[in-house]
Amino acid sequence: MNLAELRDAFDERDWQRTEPDPDDPLRFAMIGLGWWTTEEMIPAVAAEPGIETTVLVSSTAEKAERVANETHTDAVGIDYDAFHDGEAAAEYDAVYVCTPNALHLPYVETAAELDKAVLCEKPLESTVERAEQLVDAAADIPIMTAYRMHTDPAIRIAKRLFEAGEIGAPVAVQGHMTQDVLDIAGADSWRLDPSLAGPGASVTDLGIYPINTARYVLGRDPVAAHASMYSEHEAFGDVPDEAASFLMEYEGGVTGSYTASQHAQLSGSLRLIGTTGELRLEPAFFNDDRATLHRRTGTSGVTDTSIEFETVDQMQVEAAYFADCLRDDRSIEADAEHGLLDMRAIEAVYEAAERGERVEL
Amino acid sequence: MNLAELRDAFDERDWQRTEPDPDDPLRFAMIGLGWWTTEEMIPAVAAEPGIETTVLVSSTAEKAERVANETHTDAVGIDYDAFHDGEAAAEYDAVYVCTPNALHLPYVETAAELDKAVLCEKPLESTVERAEQLVDAAADIPIMTAYRMHTDPAIRIAKRLFEAGEIGAPVAVQGHMTQDVLDIAGADSWRLDPSLAGPGASVTDLGIYPINTARYVLGRDPVAAHASMYSEHEAFGDVPDEAASFLMEYEGGVTGSYTASQHAQLSGSLRLIGTTGELRLEPAFFNDDRATLHRRTGTSGVTDTSIEFETVDQMQVEAAYFADCLRDDRSIEADAEHGLLDMRAIEAVYEAAERGERVEL
Repeated sequence: MNLAELRDAFDERDWQRTEPDPDDPLRFAMIGLGWWTTEEMIPAVAAEPGIETTVLVSSTAEKAERVANETHTDAVGIDYDAFHDGEAAAEYDAVYVCTPNALHLPYVETAAELDKAVLCEKPLESTVERAEQLVDAAADIPIMTAYRMHTDPAIRIAKRLFEAGEIGAPVAVQGHMTQDVLDIAGADSWRLDPSLAGPGASVTDLGIYPINTARYVLGRDPVAAHASMYSEHEAFGDVPDEAASFLMEYEGGVTGSYTASQHAQLSGSLRLIGTTGELRLEPAFFNDDRATLHRRTGTSGVTDTSIEFETVDQMQVEAAYFADCLRDDRSIEADAEHGLLDMRAIEAVYEAAERGERVEL
Repeated sequence: MNLAELRDAFDERDWQRTEPDPDDPLRFAMIGLGWWTTEEMIPAVAAEPGIETTVLVSSTAEKAERVANETHTDAVGIDYDAFHDGEAAAEYDAVYVCTPNALHLPYVETAAELDKAVLCEKPLESTVERAEQLVDAAADIPIMTAYRMHTDPAIRIAKRLFEAGEIGAPVAVQGHMTQDVLDIAGADSWRLDPSLAGPGASVTDLGIYPINTARYVLGRDPVAAHASMYSEHEAFGDVPDEAASFLMEYEGGVTGSYTASQHAQLSGSLRLIGTTGELRLEPAFFNDDRATLHRRTGTSGVTDTSIEFETVDQMQVEAAYFADCLRDDRSIEADAEHGLLDMRAIEAVYEAAERGERVEL
C-alpha cells in the first residue's frame, strides 16, 4: 500500500455512524478542573458540533464558576459534594472524570446512580482493586476509558497496515513516553503522590500510552512484565519511578520494550517491528505533537517512506467518538474492562521492578 | 550547539595521530572468509591508504586462493592449520579474526604466539569463560574488539553532544537492531548454532550493538539485566532468541531497553533520553544505512532538528583507527577487556531470560 494514497483515502472518522443533532447535544459535566480539563478537554468539546460542556465540578462552586468564565462556557459551577447530591443532574447527560486517579471511583459510582454515561481518564483508577470496583459500579451505564490513541488517525492507519499484513508477522514493539512533570505541573502535582496516583508516577501516567496503544494495534493482550525503575530527584521521593524501563510479553510470543519518565525531555514514539517491515510513529502520544508515520520495508535495499498527519485535537475526536457511540447506542471499544486490563499490566510492572522478577498478569 | 555547524566543523577522524606510510603499510591476514570478510572487510582495507590484505586464511588453501582472485587482492591463501604453523607469518603484521565466535580464541592464541596485533570481531568469543582465556592470551599484543560504532562519525558527534551536557543528565536509552539472518546467511548460518555462536543468535550478534554503543556514548558500564526472548521458527530451534527484548541497568541509575532479532525487518536505532533533550540515531548500526542524528529539545514547544551523515564505510574507518593506534604505539580504546565486559552483559541477558529474574553482572 502507498502510504500517502492510504492517508488521502482514509476516512479519519471511519468509526462515525450517526450525525450530531445541534438541537440535542450531548451535555458534559466536567469533574476535576486541572490543566488537562481546562486547557485540553473544554476547548475540545467547544470545537466539536453536537457536544457541549454544561456543568463544571470542582472543590468549590466558586472555582468552578471562575473556570466557566475563564473558559467562556455557560456552564454551571458546582462543588464535589453537590455533584454527589445530584445537583444540576438534569443539566448533563455524561460526565468526564479527570480527577486524580484515586478519586475516579466515587464519581463513577455517583454517575452510575444518576444513570449518566462516563468518559473516565486513564489509568482507570489507582489500583487494580479499585478499578475492579469501578467496573462493577459502571456495569449498567455506558463507560469509556479515555484512550485518545484509539481514535488518532495515525494510529488507526498503523493498525490497518498491520492488520493487512504489511509488516508480516509481529516480532517486537518499542515505545516510550517522557515529559517533565515538574515543569508541566510542579513538584506538588498529585501525580507524584501515591495516595492519589497509584503505585507510581511514570508508568501509571505515561507508560500506559505505549502499553495500551501497542495492545490496541497488535490486537494482543499482555501476559507478563519485567521492569527496572529508579527515583533520584527529591520530588520523586514517594514514588519508585522517576524513570522506568520495562518489558511486556504479549500473547503469542511478541515482546515490547518501553520507557517512561516524568523527569525527562518531552518525547514519545511507538515502533512495531515485523518479519517483513516496520511501522513507527514518531512523534507519538502527545496531543499537540504532529504525528508522522514511518514505514520501512525490504532487506538488502531498504525502503523508507513516511507521511505526516495534520495535528488533530485528539480530545475532540475522542469526545466525538464517545458521543457517536451513545447516540448510536452501541458498545464502546475501550470500555472499563479494557481499562482494567491495563491496570493489571501496570501493577505487574511495579511488582516486577520491586521483586526483580518476571511477573505474570 | 547547532547540529549542522557541528557536523561541518567536526573532524571525522579526530582520533588520527599519524600519517599512513604507503611504503610501510600495515599488512592484514584475514581469518575466516565469510560474507562479512569478503564483501565488507577486504574492500574496506583496499580502499584505505596504508593498510592492505596480504594473507587470506580459510578451511582450505584453495578456497583462500579463490577468494583472493575474486576480491582482486594479491593475497596469499593458506589454510587454518598452516596459519597455526606460522606459515606466511612474515607476510602480515596483524590478523583480522572473523570466524564463528567460538573459534576466535585459538586464532588469537596463535596470533599472540606469533606476536601479531589482532582486530577481533564482536562478540569477543562465544562465552565469558572463553573470552577471559582470550584476554589472557592477548595480554602482550595489541588487540581491538571490532566495534565499528566507536569510529562512526554520527556516534562520535552524539557522544560529544551528550558529554557537553546538551541533553542534560541521562535518563534512559532505547535501542534495537534487527535483520533477517535467514535471508542474509541462510538457515545453516553458524549464527544459529550455539556451539559456534554462543548462548544465542540475536543478542550475541545484534543486541551487542545497542549494548556496547550505549555504554560507549554514556561512558557508563552495565550492572544488571532483565530479559524476555522466544524462538518459534524452526530455523531457531537450537537458540532461545529468534527475538529478544531486554533491559540493562547502568551505573548511576540509567536504564536501557533494547530489542534484537535475527528474524525481522532490517532496522536499527539508538535513542538517548536526557532530562532536557533527546538524541536519536536512526537508522543506526548497519554499515550501508545512511545515519541521521536527530535532536529534540524544549518543553511546551519542542524543537526537532536533524543532520544526515554521508554513508562512511565503517569497516574502513575502524581498520584505519586500528592501524593508527599501532603506528602510534598507543593503547586501543575498545581492547579485549572492553569486549569481555559486553560478554558478561550478554551472558546476563540470557541468564535473566532463562531464570525470569534480574541478573547482576
